[in-house]
Amino acid sequence: MSADMLADLIAELPEGTVVVDPDIVASYRQDRAADPKAGTAMAVVRPRRTEEVQAVMRWATAHRVPVVPRGAGTGLSGGATALDGGIVLSTERMRDITVDPVTRTAVTQPGLFNAEVKKAVAEYGLWYPPDPSSYEICSIGGNIATNAGGLCCVKYGVTTDYVLGMQVVLADGTAVRLGGPRLKDVAGLSLTKLFVGSEGTLGIVTEVTLKLLPTQHRGCTVVASFDDVAAAADAVVTITGKIRPSMLEFMDKVAINAVEDKLKMGLNRDAAAMMVAASDDRGPAGSEDAEYMARVFTEAGATEVYSTSDPDEGDAFVAARRFAIPAVEAKGSLLLEDVGVPLPALADLVAGVEKLAEQHQLMISVIAHAGDGNTHPLIVFDPSNADEAARAQTAFGEIMDLAVGLGGTITGEHGVGRLKRPWLAGYLGPEAMELNRRIKKALDPDDILNPGAAL
Amino acid sequence: MSADMLADLIAELPEGTVVVDPDIVASYRQDRAADPKAGTAMAVVRPRRTEEVQAVMRWATAHRVPVVPRGAGTGLSGGATALDGGIVLSTERMRDITVDPVTRTAVTQPGLFNAEVKKAVAEYGLWYPPDPSSYEICSIGGNIATNAGGLCCVKYGVTTDYVLGMQVVLADGTAVRLGGPRLKDVAGLSLTKLFVGSEGTLGIVTEVTLKLLPTQHRGCTVVASFDDVAAAADAVVTITGKIRPSMLEFMDKVAINAVEDKLKMGLNRDAAAMMVAASDDRGPAGSEDAEYMARVFTEAGATEVYSTSDPDEGDAFVAARRFAIPAVEAKGSLLLEDVGVPLPALADLVAGVEKLAEQHQLMISVIAHAGDGNTHPLIVFDPSNADEAARAQTAFGEIMDLAVGLGGTITGEHGVGRLKRPWLAGYLGPEAMELNRRIKKALDPDDILNPGAAL
Repeated sequence: MSADMLADLIAELPEGTVVVDPDIVASYRQDRAADPKAGTAMAVVRPRRTEEVQAVMRWATAHRVPVVPRGAGTGLSGGATALDGGIVLSTERMRDITVDPVTRTAVTQPGLFNAEVKKAVAEYGLWYPPDPSSYEICSIGGNIATNAGGLCCVKYGVTTDYVLGMQVVLADGTAVRLGGPRLKDVAGLSLTKLFVGSEGTLGIVTEVTLKLLPTQHRGCTVVASFDDVAAAADAVVTITGKIRPSMLEFMDKVAINAVEDKLKMGLNRDAAAMMVAASDDRGPAGSEDAEYMARVFTEAGATEVYSTSDPDEGDAFVAARRFAIPAVEAKGSLLLEDVGVPLPALADLVAGVEKLAEQHQLMISVIAHAGDGNTHPLIVFDPSNADEAARAQTAFGEIMDLAVGLGGTITGEHGVGRLKRPWLAGYLGPEAMELNRRIKKALDPDDILNPGAAL
Repeated sequence: MSADMLADLIAELPEGTVVVDPDIVASYRQDRAADPKAGTAMAVVRPRRTEEVQAVMRWATAHRVPVVPRGAGTGLSGGATALDGGIVLSTERMRDITVDPVTRTAVTQPGLFNAEVKKAVAEYGLWYPPDPSSYEICSIGGNIATNAGGLCCVKYGVTTDYVLGMQVVLADGTAVRLGGPRLKDVAGLSLTKLFVGSEGTLGIVTEVTLKLLPTQHRGCTVVASFDDVAAAADAVVTITGKIRPSMLEFMDKVAINAVEDKLKMGLNRDAAAMMVAASDDRGPAGSEDAEYMARVFTEAGATEVYSTSDPDEGDAFVAARRFAIPAVEAKGSLLLEDVGVPLPALADLVAGVEKLAEQHQLMISVIAHAGDGNTHPLIVFDPSNADEAARAQTAFGEIMDLAVGLGGTITGEHGVGRLKRPWLAGYLGPEAMELNRRIKKALDPDDILNPGAAL
């Protein structure tokens, strides 16, 4: 049965587009969330063009086959977990990009890595701001699916702020053009914005028009150590109320030590918290901001404050922050949280996570895009230890409950995927959940697109 | 029949909420678009609280009465045109605001004027950027309905970029909370963004959570005169490719003269175009940007360039630009266009409009948020001259056709309303139009909310 169905699809697409080799198909079972409930798709389909995606969706709708869209597979919430009897539609071979320096836009297919987009536009003196920590290995299509954030978002916003238009293929195979290279456009509903962050549940984005900025200035960096997390969190609130830093990142003691284990750059292993802050304002304004942040850190009780206007030295600290996830991952498997809270609740969230770590006898490291109130508690566990793995799962849920109790969200930038789906309805409430369902039903009545993810 | 129905509604709401006085009801027939096809509502309802809006919508759904939501009535596309047999739901009495300086957010009801929001948050050293020219008289709810833009958008973005959450009442009276004071939140579909710009067709926003920035620096202003529109447009492309001005505005000869007639501030009446540009970067960076813009203007062929770092003097030029619409309105009635094009097409658009003006023997003045490619051709006509009024109508449509032909949009920031509705399907194309309809149908199946507007 499934072989017959697939034969139709294989016949319709260019050779090599549909992959059924079991080893290859198995390698597409999970994304980086390593969802233990992952199934095995009947095939992986790797189209190159919008028309091919349309053919896949027409076929999927005709045969009621669930389609799991997949970017680079770096998702952390199980948004690309494969389903038994479904197909995985990978955008990895959709890699064209055209940069228009005059309109300051790039038109790109979804398969390019974020870093490749940045590089392509940098050749024209332009900059694509959103910068998830995984920017070297995550795809721009995946960024759009999750409305990805990053480090510079505290000043420059998230993915949706840079998406001017797209081509999207709906469940029934219809291709729709939305928006375009116009900086302002309010004709019709804001559908471009609706598809950003929809985690592949409403359509498959096959082309996107990105807004670009002139190249960012390389500014000043300030690093501060604290022996008290609350003091660091206080400083964040003070700073963001007064100036617009281009970065305001937080690492806790576990992360500091994990990074220092690997990079040996002389980080203060005794500190309870380390902040990495930056200003990219030009000239004296950048230095003034750096001085201001250093002063706020000191007044909040920092034990050490270090400023540098040398961009390469600054980059080293940013790299240390970016390296925190892999460094902590060296200690065991990770359940990677993504909860966000209003800024004043940051210290309470970190304290609450610490308490949960003690309670469940787990190592949990907290890193955070502190300026956005968006934290990543990293729960370390040994998957071969069933009891510890169960405690990690429990903590994963309790951290979300904690965040929601503090007025926060269950996911700031990674998406709901399959791992966080059980918490979505409780967070949104019945009315907003029903509204989500109505939109989903209107656009994908047969629930073909990424069923079981998010909604 | 309608009196019976209304009696139910009057009984359910606080005294004075439902207004049936014919003179008052008549004063709510039109917004500033002065839609000649406006009907007369059976009542104007002016609720103060979300619960009252819910009661109105439950009643409207039960009786299948169309509801036209209305902010301050400054809309320019007929989004708040009253309908015979319907009601107008005015948010003018929903005027509460709470500012939280710690999370840098404001929670406001929709009836406050944009300027009142700005003022309330300024007391805390905070800034709400979006600044439509009408900011002193337009409501924040109307800004959300149209995803309003303004002068500072070239650097700071539009309304949607500052809406973190809302409470919205659906057609059936359900109240839904979306988002909140969290700077990043990707849990569920991006519904907050969907309601922004939906022109009252999907729900009635009764409360909104706005993101605020620290107070803007008052920077440098550069004014330049050109005897050639194309030269001014070239300068715009050069400048935005290199730096991020906080304003980049354009006025044509008609606007310059209309403003000079009123303000007598010594503007160059012979110039074909005047640019008003600003940088709000602090310190030498702002002056450098101003110098850079002055140089680009000069090299592009400006006949006069004047820079000032005196903020009050700068404000005077900005006020002149903001005054352009009322100044041109002194010449006759206006059909106010709002077409946007990709930046390189700006000169062609202005030239095309000039040609249409000649062809139809009309006075058409072009002012523009040039840095966004968003222009406002102001078509002047005498409504008592039927032939001229007809020619104005024809030109109104032809300007949209011209913009679309240049890769532009039929509306950049004013909305489709009723005046531009005939052009929407042609602009969006059948697939995107169908997608709009599906969403509308899913959220307002009985077409109660602002029927005939936008979709």
